[in-house]
Amino acid sequence: MRMYDIILKKRNGNALSKEEIEFFINGYVKGEIPDYQAAALCMAVYFQGMNEEETVALTYAMAQSGDTVDLSLFQNLSVDKHSTGGVGDKTTLIVAPIVASLGGKVAKMSGRGLGHTGGTVDKLESIPHLKVTMEREDFLRQVEEIGIAVIGQSGNLTPADKKLYALRDVTATVDSIPLITSSIMSKKLAAGSHSIVLDVKVGSGAFMKNYEDAYTLAQNMVAIGKSCGRKTSALLTDMDCPLGRAIGNSLEVIEAVEILKGKEKGDLYEVCVALATEMVVLLKDCTFDEAKKTVIDAIDSGKAYNKMREWVSSQGGDASYIEDTTLFEKPIFAVPVTAQEDGWISHMNAEAIGIASVILGAGRATKDAPIDYSAGIIMEKKTGDYVRSGEALATLYTNDESSVASAKERYLSSLTFSSQKPEKRTLIYDVIR
Amino acid sequence: MRMYDIILKKRNGNALSKEEIEFFINGYVKGEIPDYQAAALCMAVYFQGMNEEETVALTYAMAQSGDTVDLSLFQNLSVDKHSTGGVGDKTTLIVAPIVASLGGKVAKMSGRGLGHTGGTVDKLESIPHLKVTMEREDFLRQVEEIGIAVIGQSGNLTPADKKLYALRDVTATVDSIPLITSSIMSKKLAAGSHSIVLDVKVGSGAFMKNYEDAYTLAQNMVAIGKSCGRKTSALLTDMDCPLGRAIGNSLEVIEAVEILKGKEKGDLYEVCVALATEMVVLLKDCTFDEAKKTVIDAIDSGKAYNKMREWVSSQGGDASYIEDTTLFEKPIFAVPVTAQEDGWISHMNAEAIGIASVILGAGRATKDAPIDYSAGIIMEKKTGDYVRSGEALATLYTNDESSVASAKERYLSSLTFSSQKPEKRTLIYDVIR
Repeated sequence: MRMYDIILKKRNGNALSKEEIEFFINGYVKGEIPDYQAAALCMAVYFQGMNEEETVALTYAMAQSGDTVDLSLFQNLSVDKHSTGGVGDKTTLIVAPIVASLGGKVAKMSGRGLGHTGGTVDKLESIPHLKVTMEREDFLRQVEEIGIAVIGQSGNLTPADKKLYALRDVTATVDSIPLITSSIMSKKLAAGSHSIVLDVKVGSGAFMKNYEDAYTLAQNMVAIGKSCGRKTSALLTDMDCPLGRAIGNSLEVIEAVEILKGKEKGDLYEVCVALATEMVVLLKDCTFDEAKKTVIDAIDSGKAYNKMREWVSSQGGDASYIEDTTLFEKPIFAVPVTAQEDGWISHMNAEAIGIASVILGAGRATKDAPIDYSAGIIMEKKTGDYVRSGEALATLYTNDESSVASAKERYLSSLTFSSQKPEKRTLIYDVIR
Repeated sequence: MRMYDIILKKRNGNALSKEEIEFFINGYVKGEIPDYQAAALCMAVYFQGMNEEETVALTYAMAQSGDTVDLSLFQNLSVDKHSTGGVGDKTTLIVAPIVASLGGKVAKMSGRGLGHTGGTVDKLESIPHLKVTMEREDFLRQVEEIGIAVIGQSGNLTPADKKLYALRDVTATVDSIPLITSSIMSKKLAAGSHSIVLDVKVGSGAFMKNYEDAYTLAQNMVAIGKSCGRKTSALLTDMDCPLGRAIGNSLEVIEAVEILKGKEKGDLYEVCVALATEMVVLLKDCTFDEAKKTVIDAIDSGKAYNKMREWVSSQGGDASYIEDTTLFEKPIFAVPVTAQEDGWISHMNAEAIGIASVILGAGRATKDAPIDYSAGIIMEKKTGDYVRSGEALATLYTNDESSVASAKERYLSSLTFSSQKPEKRTLIYDVIR
């Protein structure tokens, strides 16, 4: 078998066999197939696509390219959630304890923030003393005992995806549905959960900017997940506007706690309830309405909030910060952004707002840049709200005074005002099972 | 400017600017742009193509990536010929002295054989003592004095094309019209001739197997040549059957001499007269009929033959071999291939016949393999000929007895017989000016 022939076959629009895909992935991970041939193949896949059989083979080959996590001791109770990434997306911090409090086993590996989107691992680390690394056996023991553990990506999981994604990132071959699908689903497969709920974000702050692309991706991922023997469903949720009111690591932890304490509702609450409900549907084979009732009860009864405290303590974090969120360190500067005109906010560019928060210190411009856990943005007004000139739109938090002017300008320019009341935002576009 | 953005732009079907193309070529030659990004771009070009403006910019950028030959001292008299490659294609050995004998200045750099096609430089080297390397000033002096010099590719001509072609060769991105066009035309531009006649071969022994692809390529190359300020035309000629009767280095030199001595006509004669005529048309701005008359006269009068002797002597070769071609060393084995049935030869797979000659030792299987100058094939019967069982089809010449069985089998299996007389072969399909 020759890599040249595999590239040619795909370039000419033919489907690759399982053996050809395995030859490519195994050879690429071993360094026997050079980057330039892999890049040519990725571009050919961008144009010619891959059918379901090919995508399943690619997903499997990548999942099996390194270590895998064995969650079989939890039988059908292990459940994972994956978001395609957005701004202000702290749903893992909320849905994981909800589902764990209802008997689910959430053994999760999460990423760090990069670019305009944050990462769950960074958010967790903003809680003093909390550890996001642990030995495999401690990780599994914690999941067994309290139903939840969230750590950073550890071990040699899906090295093929790591290497291939880095290549796609510099060769303009990221946005190919079969390549995105296999990248995400190979990691989920290797991470071992029996059930997977995908949160596919759509809108200005999401990777998928339009509904059709997001829908196609969601459909593909669900089909591939099922073909790989996992219970899989996807929610298409709005990311045309940041989720919730807080952006920034400790600010988002605080907001998550408020939701779990039942003190805050709104878009974040709705999306978290929907995601947790779908996870319970897969876990318990019950109806959506039945599952939703148990999810809301888990919040209202304080069970989910107690699970969060337990979770934070188990990972070495100081749970007093969860009990009293005013303990979180505040940054030196809290700068209001005020409206310069009257009107309805008809649109917010979520990606631009994410970048504003990075400028304030909440995120990483480059992979190894430091993070200011306390920095970020609290939004007072969001899409659909009416504001008067001079009224507060948001507050910017930072320890770096020099960042304020630029972040403020970017925040303001991300908003579009209208003299007419905009249509109500849809939060959940679709559920794909 | 970022290479990533250039790949993305082409991938999305947009035309690249001159500046973007120069950024790519210059950065790639310097090693600042990695192979994997170049490979991704080539595959994107394969799918999205390039318009004339882009192809001109790419051709110029590659031509200027290294040394260039200045032939301005010959004013409008310098003329080059380029063949896209075939089997038994010894036309340079014939048309160069014809055109030089008519006042043209043929300052030519030729390639070596690789794969199933031979190379002019190897053929010339089969003449004892002939040198295909010389200093730039000696090269130009010889062209000035006798109107002709043919050497191997020397100096640092079009390093961008060398590097990019090697990459395309292993990433299945060779057969893209704009990339082929810019590869060929950049070399012609750098080689400096004012007029260029392209011999675009079509058929089983050619790179372009079908007429439409060959026509598109020829049209493109002529347009690009003209846009780059060169007088350019193309002939579409048949390569569905090997050209002439001889394949192999000294065997082809002998056949070329026979043509120049007026002793042989047939397909090779016709194609050479057409190519030389087109070169004279560009040189002298005369009609095709006028030019053809002078070309035939150059052969009939012995002027072209004398020019060949002069040429061989000038490059250090022993011209007595041209005067008496029986002096060429003969290989140990001369093995007849005889027909196993009666019938008309309706088709010859020229590529397979080229490979048979390589097996006999006439060509290179790999880049640095040695060549047996005396090895090759003399075809007695060609497409359109009637043969009786037992009659000689060809003679195989080699010094390697072990190669005979396999070469013979391949030769025989390359022939298709028919009980009906096939249509007469077209030799010259089109002239594109």
